[in-house]
Amino acid sequence: MADEKARRIGVLTGGGDCPGLNAVIRAVTKTAQLEYGASVLGIQDGFEGLVEGRAHELAHQEVSGILGLGGTILGSSNKGDPWHYPTETARGKIEIHDMAFKAIRHVERWQLDCLVAIGGDGTMHIARRLSEAGVPVIGVPKTIDNDVPATDVTFGFDTAVSVVCEAIDRLASTASSHHRVMVVEVMGRYAGWIALMGGVAGGADVILIPEIRFRWDSVFRKVDERQTQGKRFTMVCVAEGVRLPDGTEVVAEFDSKRTDAKRLGGAGAVVARAIEQGTGHEARVTVLGHLQRGGSPTSFDRVLATRYGTAAARLACSGQAGVMVALRDGHIEAVPLEQATGELRRVPLDHDLIAAARSVGTSFGDH
Amino acid sequence: MADEKARRIGVLTGGGDCPGLNAVIRAVTKTAQLEYGASVLGIQDGFEGLVEGRAHELAHQEVSGILGLGGTILGSSNKGDPWHYPTETARGKIEIHDMAFKAIRHVERWQLDCLVAIGGDGTMHIARRLSEAGVPVIGVPKTIDNDVPATDVTFGFDTAVSVVCEAIDRLASTASSHHRVMVVEVMGRYAGWIALMGGVAGGADVILIPEIRFRWDSVFRKVDERQTQGKRFTMVCVAEGVRLPDGTEVVAEFDSKRTDAKRLGGAGAVVARAIEQGTGHEARVTVLGHLQRGGSPTSFDRVLATRYGTAAARLACSGQAGVMVALRDGHIEAVPLEQATGELRRVPLDHDLIAAARSVGTSFGDH
Amino acid sequence: MADEKARRIGVLTGGGDCPGLNAVIRAVTKTAQLEYGASVLGIQDGFEGLVEGRAHELAHQEVSGILGLGGTILGSSNKGDPWHYPTETARGKIEIHDMAFKAIRHVERWQLDCLVAIGGDGTMHIARRLSEAGVPVIGVPKTIDNDVPATDVTFGFDTAVSVVCEAIDRLASTASSHHRVMVVEVMGRYAGWIALMGGVAGGADVILIPEIRFRWDSVFRKVDERQTQGKRFTMVCVAEGVRLPDGTEVVAEFDSKRTDAKRLGGAGAVVARAIEQGTGHEARVTVLGHLQRGGSPTSFDRVLATRYGTAAARLACSGQAGVMVALRDGHIEAVPLEQATGELRRVPLDHDLIAAARSVGTSFGDH
Amino acid sequence: MADEKARRIGVLTGGGDCPGLNAVIRAVTKTAQLEYGASVLGIQDGFEGLVEGRAHELAHQEVSGILGLGGTILGSSNKGDPWHYPTETARGKIEIHDMAFKAIRHVERWQLDCLVAIGGDGTMHIARRLSEAGVPVIGVPKTIDNDVPATDVTFGFDTAVSVVCEAIDRLASTASSHHRVMVVEVMGRYAGWIALMGGVAGGADVILIPEIRFRWDSVFRKVDERQTQGKRFTMVCVAEGVRLPDGTEVVAEFDSKRTDAKRLGGAGAVVARAIEQGTGHEARVTVLGHLQRGGSPTSFDRVLATRYGTAAARLACSGQAGVMVALRDGHIEAVPLEQATGELRRVPLDHDLIAAARSVGTSFGDH
Repeated sequence: MADEKARRIGVLTGGGDCPGLNAVIRAVTKTAQLEYGASVLGIQDGFEGLVEGRAHELAHQEVSGILGLGGTILGSSNKGDPWHYPTETARGKIEIHDMAFKAIRHVERWQLDCLVAIGGDGTMHIARRLSEAGVPVIGVPKTIDNDVPATDVTFGFDTAVSVVCEAIDRLASTASSHHRVMVVEVMGRYAGWIALMGGVAGGADVILIPEIRFRWDSVFRKVDERQTQGKRFTMVCVAEGVRLPDGTEVVAEFDSKRTDAKRLGGAGAVVARAIEQGTGHEARVTVLGHLQRGGSPTSFDRVLATRYGTAAARLACSGQAGVMVALRDGHIEAVPLEQATGELRRVPLDHDLIAAARSVGTSFGDH
Repeated sequence: MADEKARRIGVLTGGGDCPGLNAVIRAVTKTAQLEYGASVLGIQDGFEGLVEGRAHELAHQEVSGILGLGGTILGSSNKGDPWHYPTETARGKIEIHDMAFKAIRHVERWQLDCLVAIGGDGTMHIARRLSEAGVPVIGVPKTIDNDVPATDVTFGFDTAVSVVCEAIDRLASTASSHHRVMVVEVMGRYAGWIALMGGVAGGADVILIPEIRFRWDSVFRKVDERQTQGKRFTMVCVAEGVRLPDGTEVVAEFDSKRTDAKRLGGAGAVVARAIEQGTGHEARVTVLGHLQRGGSPTSFDRVLATRYGTAAARLACSGQAGVMVALRDGHIEAVPLEQATGELRRVPLDHDLIAAARSVGTSFGDH
Repeated sequence: MADEKARRIGVLTGGGDCPGLNAVIRAVTKTAQLEYGASVLGIQDGFEGLVEGRAHELAHQEVSGILGLGGTILGSSNKGDPWHYPTETARGKIEIHDMAFKAIRHVERWQLDCLVAIGGDGTMHIARRLSEAGVPVIGVPKTIDNDVPATDVTFGFDTAVSVVCEAIDRLASTASSHHRVMVVEVMGRYAGWIALMGGVAGGADVILIPEIRFRWDSVFRKVDERQTQGKRFTMVCVAEGVRLPDGTEVVAEFDSKRTDAKRLGGAGAVVARAIEQGTGHEARVTVLGHLQRGGSPTSFDRVLATRYGTAAARLACSGQAGVMVALRDGHIEAVPLEQATGELRRVPLDHDLIAAARSVGTSFGDH
Repeated sequence: MADEKARRIGVLTGGGDCPGLNAVIRAVTKTAQLEYGASVLGIQDGFEGLVEGRAHELAHQEVSGILGLGGTILGSSNKGDPWHYPTETARGKIEIHDMAFKAIRHVERWQLDCLVAIGGDGTMHIARRLSEAGVPVIGVPKTIDNDVPATDVTFGFDTAVSVVCEAIDRLASTASSHHRVMVVEVMGRYAGWIALMGGVAGGADVILIPEIRFRWDSVFRKVDERQTQGKRFTMVCVAEGVRLPDGTEVVAEFDSKRTDAKRLGGAGAVVARAIEQGTGHEARVTVLGHLQRGGSPTSFDRVLATRYGTAAARLACSGQAGVMVALRDGHIEAVPLEQATGELRRVPLDHDLIAAARSVGTSFGDH
């Protein structure tokens, strides 16, 4: 099945950590090597490696046994965007320069027939720009937040949801025995998918997501209602990106990028304090943070990542480019990178899971 | 939102165990009670309870906190079919009688407006027959095997796959250190879904499913090939229902129903012995059995079970009947029980996951 | 083996949550009922239930199936101390009163031959005082912190350590792929057992515990050293009760009892910020908090809790009192409550695990 | 702290798989390298590598990140004993020869100051014999069965017990919902430690171990008793090495070494069949097998393995030999290899855990 001239593809992982990255790298590499006789170049630390020319041939051995491994064997980096690339000057200052020419030059030097870029929203934007600049790119959508447009689901999401669900299970036993309000803050800066799915899976009594504007009195009422019903605890699941009733954005306490911003604590802490003051019941907050991003992917994410990886390799090795692999109605498809860089996919207010959650008694703080 | 006259629905769980049963019972009960003001009767031990009149009102308390609980709080039974119901005679002999009239009489006595039957293939057939006899029934598909027709996925399946995946992870470390062939036998009497998904998620080198006729030499070649490549172990995932190359069916060793059948050991044992003889490499077999059926459902299954349960309650409380809830292309739908009792849903040979598995080097023993 | 007159014992759980409480309750109840024909009264919400007279007979059914359940079926409360009991006045003010007479009166009214008090340091002090006041009490040591004196280990500790270990595993994959310093804050206000054991189990590079005074430059050096060695990440495990080099105590950000205290963030946040400033490397903090206290106990803790529970019931049913059950050199013993209320058991500086950790390269920030 | 002349130690892992082997290898290597400036030679596939001269220098990198990894990076082998070493003749026949001279010659050629042998009973016997032949050896006890003499506990045991406990949890939900007798067969050929601890942790109703001779009628009575009490399921935990009431040994079905022995099925299957026939209740058997041996070690085992490893390296690097590291009353000690090769450590009949199990209602089938 191999081409006459052996193809050569590059692969990189961009952005934050996400369970399943290694499963994609493995599937891309094995498919390219076994099915197309292609060689695969592993580019290190995302687009940073592309700009700075750090890469090495991926041997068969190297991708063996990494299917269930968390993290990425290729590394990633925050110095993501070749068009806005931080460089240290002789005087030790950091300046932002356009280094895209370097990235493109490496694609040429390395004689890559195609570049497989695994990443989230930011990565897809760079992939699109590289594509417009003539670089053949295949995107693979990654984000635990599940908000990449043009695909029904991204790998890493199921793992994040299962971490949230396990955490709520753990906290519920304490909440129930010690008659507490437990607030769990989960990831989701713009979209509430993790909070919604994780909250429903964990049986949360209140779920607060960015898509639904909540009211304090509604939340307090739910807490009081449960007390009255003899259930002396309440489980609250809050997306980090939830907007407060007054419209303010919550700036996470330890956001290293905004050290001088007014520190309110994260969304979870704000909600917990408000509940204590509004209802008089003790509330405790747990911020799951990076626990949702790391570790071994669930079987669901391993399968999805493998399907994405083989599909991406096939496209890359058969001369296609400018597209992102996506799952739609259960089938793997290729969608133009333009579509993949549209508006973030947020939870639609008419999603049947919101209705289902309300049916089993969950409050979204809006009634 | 409640009807003028409060509705009354019954709920039962039939057939083998499956993670997520309690999540459905909870969702049905809460939705019926909270959203429709309906009362819910919990029928004990599946259709056995319907025939023998064992049931009790499900209190709100009783379904609280059971979302993540394995098993079924209602119990289940093998004495499933009211039309072929085993009864003990005065002399202690077991005779099969038609007891359907008793089942129908209890529906009337209990004044059920609708019966929600949660179960697999067998349960759906009985549900259909009851429906044809005039009993309003809503089916909820359940089977870890994922082979119920007319729905894309059943709850319990994701949990079973994750158990298989974890088991392969565990066994792989031993296989790799001790240079062994490890054979894992998983569930799937007619369909290979669990073996396929679990095998891909665990990175199995060989996957044998009922849908694909395998050849011994192909399996042996794969084992030898890995040795030659310096990978001194092979992981084999076998569905219990796999057919041997000569077309024989493997009768599980300890099948209590067939104590006098020729005992070959299960499919896993047969495959392990054949590999030992055919390749000279040591092979060990692990039969996962009931480990795949029990325990707490994954977050995916809890969400799916909740969606099914609320949908079923809504149908039941709004006067519909004769249908099964189903997931199709991501949406919950109602399909006629006739469709739900068609041919079992087996793995189609052109499924993209089979192709993806082959791409990463997995053998199905057919080439 | 039953006494002539059937004995009657009470059981309560005091203080914070701890995996294994239900396992003790089960073992106490089953042993008392099955072995001594005694009846068991479950007192609700710790000493609050003893003061206010809330209790009910524990049926055999009630303790069945709770061995692996997190939390406590008896409930617990912060209104712990009968001698300093908060009461609401007619005007809605909270006043502290001595309500010990009420607690003692209930012991008499309920005709308890013995009270089994399961709890930590605070509970043992109250148990001792009750004992001095003439109430026959048996203590069962509980604390995830493992700092109860006079016993080698407390149940709940192994579960807490395993939660820390799993969390570090998860975080390490991200740290390693994304070249980060990851700080994990774990429980341990006065003793560093969880940080020490969890840190060694997770392979932490730096472990900071209350018992060892650390220096910032030592911590920074370790972080830099790993970078130089090509390991571009560092895992830091910090006990919440660690003292800063300048001797200040860190007040946890969201401590509801000290809402007006100067908010520094917890120990983890302080350490992460210091590392960012001192080394220039990005640091992220994860606070495990209540995740360490809840959920199903490990097999180790279930066995230990069962041993404690049966031993306590035997003592209680054979007329002994004024002692706490303890594990010493592998054997269950009874130690006087006086010993059990001595100084908290902190990590001795010559513990072989500290030496072992240093041997594998872990820094305690003191050299 | 390094010696004048840098020391050189070898390390190998013998026998079956056991969670924590890599943790020991890591601790031995790091301690030797960091603390003593010693070099460490990794000998491949146990004593097979020692006889055949397969080994390589262990680089610092190689033992980094393996703390939580199942299996052994050094490999192991069944061709264990240098004094009875299987060799293939020119004609393809397997003959047993004394190859000890080769093993000893490699120790000399490699200039090993000491050999650290990690393994179970068999490995300790070979270690002792090598020691008697003048080779400086330090033993590290390994066995999931926990039956190595002269030490209180071996690493791997806690992991095996936790696998059993999780499995029983899973099976219990099915047993309870479907009114079944569930039989779990666990490891333990000569000693019942895993069955005892795992059974107590899982709340098994019947525990059958090699140390206690059971009677069928006693087992049947327990099953019937539970039915009468309204508990319609029974959980039975059986050690593979249990002796049947008639004194016969059960030969495991798929024991590759005894392909021609009379196949009875394993102990679990025999017990399940007997219960079905003796009580009329349906029984199902699950054989955990290799699931107990593989995968990531628990935090407890990681800590223990680390303590053993550092202790072994210290002994090896400070000129000691002929001893095995052991845990006694909480402390790491060195015991002569003679003691370590005494009689297997079986469960003493007066162990307090047996009494505790009886107190909570568990039957050992002997009354």
